Amino acid sequence: MTTPPSIPQGTRDFGPDIVCKRNFIFQTIKRFFELYAFQPLETPALEHLDTLMGKYGDEGDKLIFKILNNGLDHPEKQQKAREEFEKILQGKNSSFITERALKYDLTIPLARYVAMNHQRITFPFKRFQIQPVWRADRPQKGRYREFWQCDADIVGSRSSLHEAELALLCHDVFTGLGLKNYSLRVNHRKILAGLCETMGCSEKLTQITTAIDKLEKAGWEKVSAELQKAGLLPQQTDTVRQFISITGTTEEVIKQLQDLMPHSYEAAAGIEDIKSFFSWLKNITIPVVLDPSLARGLDYYTGIIFEIKAPPEVKMGSLGGGGRYDNLTGLFGVTGISGVGISFGIDRIFDVMEELSLFPDSLNETAKLIFFNLGITETEVTFSLARELRNKGNSVDIYPDKVKLDKQFRYAEKKNIQWAVIIGEEEIKTHTAKLKNLKTGVQQTLTFTELLNFSF
Amino acid sequence: MTTPPSIPQGTRDFGPDIVCKRNFIFQTIKRFFELYAFQPLETPALEHLDTLMGKYGDEGDKLIFKILNNGLDHPEKQQKAREEFEKILQGKNSSFITERALKYDLTIPLARYVAMNHQRITFPFKRFQIQPVWRADRPQKGRYREFWQCDADIVGSRSSLHEAELALLCHDVFTGLGLKNYSLRVNHRKILAGLCETMGCSEKLTQITTAIDKLEKAGWEKVSAELQKAGLLPQQTDTVRQFISITGTTEEVIKQLQDLMPHSYEAAAGIEDIKSFFSWLKNITIPVVLDPSLARGLDYYTGIIFEIKAPPEVKMGSLGGGGRYDNLTGLFGVTGISGVGISFGIDRIFDVMEELSLFPDSLNETAKLIFFNLGITETEVTFSLARELRNKGNSVDIYPDKVKLDKQFRYAEKKNIQWAVIIGEEEIKTHTAKLKNLKTGVQQTLTFTELLNFSF
Repeated sequence: MTTPPSIPQGTRDFGPDIVCKRNFIFQTIKRFFELYAFQPLETPALEHLDTLMGKYGDEGDKLIFKILNNGLDHPEKQQKAREEFEKILQGKNSSFITERALKYDLTIPLARYVAMNHQRITFPFKRFQIQPVWRADRPQKGRYREFWQCDADIVGSRSSLHEAELALLCHDVFTGLGLKNYSLRVNHRKILAGLCETMGCSEKLTQITTAIDKLEKAGWEKVSAELQKAGLLPQQTDTVRQFISITGTTEEVIKQLQDLMPHSYEAAAGIEDIKSFFSWLKNITIPVVLDPSLARGLDYYTGIIFEIKAPPEVKMGSLGGGGRYDNLTGLFGVTGISGVGISFGIDRIFDVMEELSLFPDSLNETAKLIFFNLGITETEVTFSLARELRNKGNSVDIYPDKVKLDKQFRYAEKKNIQWAVIIGEEEIKTHTAKLKNLKTGVQQTLTFTELLNFSF
Repeated sequence: MTTPPSIPQGTRDFGPDIVCKRNFIFQTIKRFFELYAFQPLETPALEHLDTLMGKYGDEGDKLIFKILNNGLDHPEKQQKAREEFEKILQGKNSSFITERALKYDLTIPLARYVAMNHQRITFPFKRFQIQPVWRADRPQKGRYREFWQCDADIVGSRSSLHEAELALLCHDVFTGLGLKNYSLRVNHRKILAGLCETMGCSEKLTQITTAIDKLEKAGWEKVSAELQKAGLLPQQTDTVRQFISITGTTEEVIKQLQDLMPHSYEAAAGIEDIKSFFSWLKNITIPVVLDPSLARGLDYYTGIIFEIKAPPEVKMGSLGGGGRYDNLTGLFGVTGISGVGISFGIDRIFDVMEELSLFPDSLNETAKLIFFNLGITETEVTFSLARELRNKGNSVDIYPDKVKLDKQFRYAEKKNIQWAVIIGEEEIKTHTAKLKNLKTGVQQTLTFTELLNFSF
């Protein structure tokens, strides 16, 4: 191969600096997941294509990466493969050509896992999952073809305690990451359904929800145009406008919703859930706002929905979200299991933390200290000292060759190592080491014992 | 979908128990990688098919999972797709049909990464990588289509210090995992080349190496048959037999190798490296054995090779291995970069640790404690207490509904939670909690303050 190598569009190599920063995010989130008694689950990258198809809408289906079956060049398979390939060319599926696909999100695999294992699982099942997913989307800034999702869900319980716990978890995570000034918007699908019920167009719930979902990105003009396209009368569109303009304290918003939809059974049920959600949080100060204009596009939500808003000082929309869904496992033949979950948008959180310089400096340190190499005899000594220092929990590098010290200093600097240990012929005779702080330039002489007990 | 869902053959769901055990292995290995100043790298699951093809031999090429390009059903693409698909049916590639593939190992992506970034990387580059890889192999016990590799490599240095560090790292990892009685076999590709040189058939190095590699699994009969098939004369086959039968201390083995191949320049060079490797380790007691019968199949090794042998009390072959390779990045147009690496076989290590019951019991604990649910008013109190206990670093679960205590106890037991806290109407009045140790059955009454300061 003579052309320089590259990686597929929309994928990324994560070099050491980036991995350390991403791990800082993952580990912070994981720590809180565990404190809230969530358990880890990992599902394969590969799923049966059947498992995924038809779960993400027509647009979603087209974005699923499919795996070509191996062995189609076998003489006995060629003719059938040729015929079956015509199905692919017609936009259909053929399990003869491709029976597997890369997972598209973590929610359908969870539903599939629960449906497969529901007789063994103790419910409520609180699981978290941090794994890559793949989408054949057009890559653009902040949108990748291989990206990570980070989800926590509680499956098999309808208690609104879980929604409150997820809100609190979210607060702990963002506080833990140092991302103050985030906010959590909350709404309820039944309140949106109540709006449709009140307007006498319950059958248009999905269209109305999808339209409202575009408010923040595209503005009211666009929403209003979409509502008109969906066949709403000017009076109805005006009701939607009134609805999404409601603001205030939780009590004030609830009062206005009740005034707007006094006879809606759906709205009343949604408001009841919302009240119960807020009552769990009444003694705790976290930035949760009841916002009727929050819609969230995904069709499977049926109860409370969340969205995490980035701090206002950065231009970035949602950092995550979630909500309650009923009957997700029903897609796989197991009915009556309710769930509620939250998902953190790792890539966006990463970008916001970079922008606000929130990553600790220590993350890009390769090692605490490095032994410079002054020759074979010297390095035989440093090799043993390095071993003892590692046994005490210090990360230690040893320069592998006897080259000019200049070069070794440069290496240490580039690798962001704070301490250099220099042991030459003289030092070996006296059992001492020169220890230099590469950040301050200060150098001191220590005995081997002092070196082994030094606090790096 | 009415058929119960399943996952593709050769893939696995990792439920909470298994993830915790696997993470114990990953984290132990990662800790030592970091103590030895290795830095993390992550490369995408998807690579250009061109990057992978031709790197793993003809057999390997067939086992690469290829991704079907999206959008082939576009009217303008159909005819060309039909034509290009014929190439696939002939066992060739077509970037029109499939331009991406799933990575097959971590070594070629490392070479690709280094070739892409060599002007920015500070060498020696010590990287570790723990990621899944995919192979369309026939699944069988212990062989999966999606499995994890766990590699550490040093790229851009020829110092034999690295081989010694990797041997030591390996020892620390296995000691850290509690896997005593493992052993590390070492040999050198140049010693094997020396054998061929001595027998006057240097051109048969690959065949002879491949044959010797089968000794442990298939026995001498099979090796001897393969050597004969490769055209070795009975006298030569006998020399191979002598060679692989050499045992003893390092000095004894070296002496016998020198006696068998007194005039081989290759052997002498290999022995020189081996001596230098062992001299680094002379003050350290680790189970390293120089074993001429170690060959390792992979063609890209050029220097010292390693193999980690499972403890004799379990029936399991290699738990990992590695070695030095020259010019791996040469495949991508960047020459003169030497590397050396080690790879841990996670799935086998997992199986051995299960068999020897080496996983700590605490791993499958979902939470330290659980608050039982005696009603809404009670749970509003426990919700605040749970928050404070989590802030102190305890993982805490709250039972979400007021159901019979029996059921709550059963839940706690199944989730392996040691402590249950019971707060009812009476307890709220007196600001106390009943704390029950579910392992011992002992129950005590604590004030809220005592509870918050309790050492769980």
